[in-house]
Amino acid sequence: MFQEEKGGAPVKEDMVIASRKNEMLRRASRLLSSAEARRESGLFLAEGARLCRDAARSGISIKQLYYTEAAAEKYPEYLQEIRCHAEQVFQLAEHAAPLLSDTKRPQGIFCVCEMKGQSSQRWVPAREHTLLLEQMQDPGNLGAVFRTAEALGIGTIVLCGESCDVYSPKVLRASMGAVFRLNAKWVPSLKEACDLLKKEGIPVYAAVPDSAAVPVTSVDFSRPSAMAVGNEGNGLSREGIEACTQTVTIPMAGRAESLNAASSAAILLWEMVRGGGSGLAI
Amino acid sequence: MFQEEKGGAPVKEDMVIASRKNEMLRRASRLLSSAEARRESGLFLAEGARLCRDAARSGISIKQLYYTEAAAEKYPEYLQEIRCHAEQVFQLAEHAAPLLSDTKRPQGIFCVCEMKGQSSQRWVPAREHTLLLEQMQDPGNLGAVFRTAEALGIGTIVLCGESCDVYSPKVLRASMGAVFRLNAKWVPSLKEACDLLKKEGIPVYAAVPDSAAVPVTSVDFSRPSAMAVGNEGNGLSREGIEACTQTVTIPMAGRAESLNAASSAAILLWEMVRGGGSGLAI
Repeated sequence: MFQEEKGGAPVKEDMVIASRKNEMLRRASRLLSSAEARRESGLFLAEGARLCRDAARSGISIKQLYYTEAAAEKYPEYLQEIRCHAEQVFQLAEHAAPLLSDTKRPQGIFCVCEMKGQSSQRWVPAREHTLLLEQMQDPGNLGAVFRTAEALGIGTIVLCGESCDVYSPKVLRASMGAVFRLNAKWVPSLKEACDLLKKEGIPVYAAVPDSAAVPVTSVDFSRPSAMAVGNEGNGLSREGIEACTQTVTIPMAGRAESLNAASSAAILLWEMVRGGGSGLAI
Repeated sequence: MFQEEKGGAPVKEDMVIASRKNEMLRRASRLLSSAEARRESGLFLAEGARLCRDAARSGISIKQLYYTEAAAEKYPEYLQEIRCHAEQVFQLAEHAAPLLSDTKRPQGIFCVCEMKGQSSQRWVPAREHTLLLEQMQDPGNLGAVFRTAEALGIGTIVLCGESCDVYSPKVLRASMGAVFRLNAKWVPSLKEACDLLKKEGIPVYAAVPDSAAVPVTSVDFSRPSAMAVGNEGNGLSREGIEACTQTVTIPMAGRAESLNAASSAAILLWEMVRGGGSGLAI
């Protein structure tokens, strides 16, 4: 409502935080390093001009914006756009910026944001293509998978079991903001996810590196389907595979063990949408 | 010839290097940080039990093996196998290991290796599927693409123009040793690579994020073909695209700018081999 007023040139000086001991700053800093602090507060920290702007554009609620003077000079357009969506805005002394940064050379723009949805909300499968990730541990891979899913138009990713936190700095960065735009859900186990999906009549395919499994190229993805992908080290769990409708594989001429989780996911998701099948029920 | 003798339990104590000022160690250390030192010497440094063993298994010539006492206890089988292929073996004092390491917690196994082939050797296209990468700058992406290419049975990757060094520690690590097993070639420009390929009657497809280009799904890959992929920031150069036979694209329902270079390459390479076409002329 006050966007015009807030979006123009700053009408007043922002409060400057110069002390690294500032209590608000310390709380924000904990969001960087501690998954527990994020879970308890429902908040996370986004870093960088591009990522913070992506958060603002995605309708993520921004509680606080912190910026350094150098960042204000370097990224004025980004800052102005983010400022429009931030509840509170603080200027940060240059020497305090590393407190909020996960990178060697901080850009000097940070936002404390509210996680999307409620973690307590129960996932209800929709009639669309869905990606299930079981116990994904590597933040870089998880972020990359979010990016690919977004590119290919897969709207929902369900994290099954113990997974790395999607709001960790590394995942946010690797996802290039896709975490803000996709639907990420969590269920305690792949089996539970399979049961919910199968109840809706949605088949769940377990991706396995087993040349005896059905080639993913033979599967009909014209109707909503789910694909389950395991983690880098161990693949899918046995219980998880058993709960799925069918095992599928990527038929490969080369050295199959070389395909990493993010590349496997790219090929599997691509196969789901390749024929033009969006997976949406018509 | 002397494999049995060298491969058994160490028959004598290895020379111990305790000084961080040791000249040989300093030379090895320069291979870690300087692409120029690698280029001038034709040598590179591999780090880690798995990667060094992969080098040994791939027939890479190992000039020196360095290991710490802790590594000897933790990775005896790996060390024994690597030792069989190493010309010289040195034990390294624990405090000297970080000199050779690119990681926070070094495993304590390092090999000075000889690059494959001669960089002066001119590339002659073979009748097989080939991946051309133009000005690839990100080591993580480059390594990931090597892994994927290996998995899918693409044997040759041609780096066109200024590219990050395939023997840099980050590329080696991200490639999980695929750099040792694939054919990596270098040509000064994508145009030059295209000219060589087209002279052999091999079509070169330029991958572009342009929905007006031919969908990659409509291309006949039953005969040897080449795919050109640009770098993360800028895509393919205009001159490069013009030198190719045809532009192709990955038809996407989602947010195309989200697909990173490694994931694009995974999907494009997959399309090349998907129909079972190995690209090898029969």
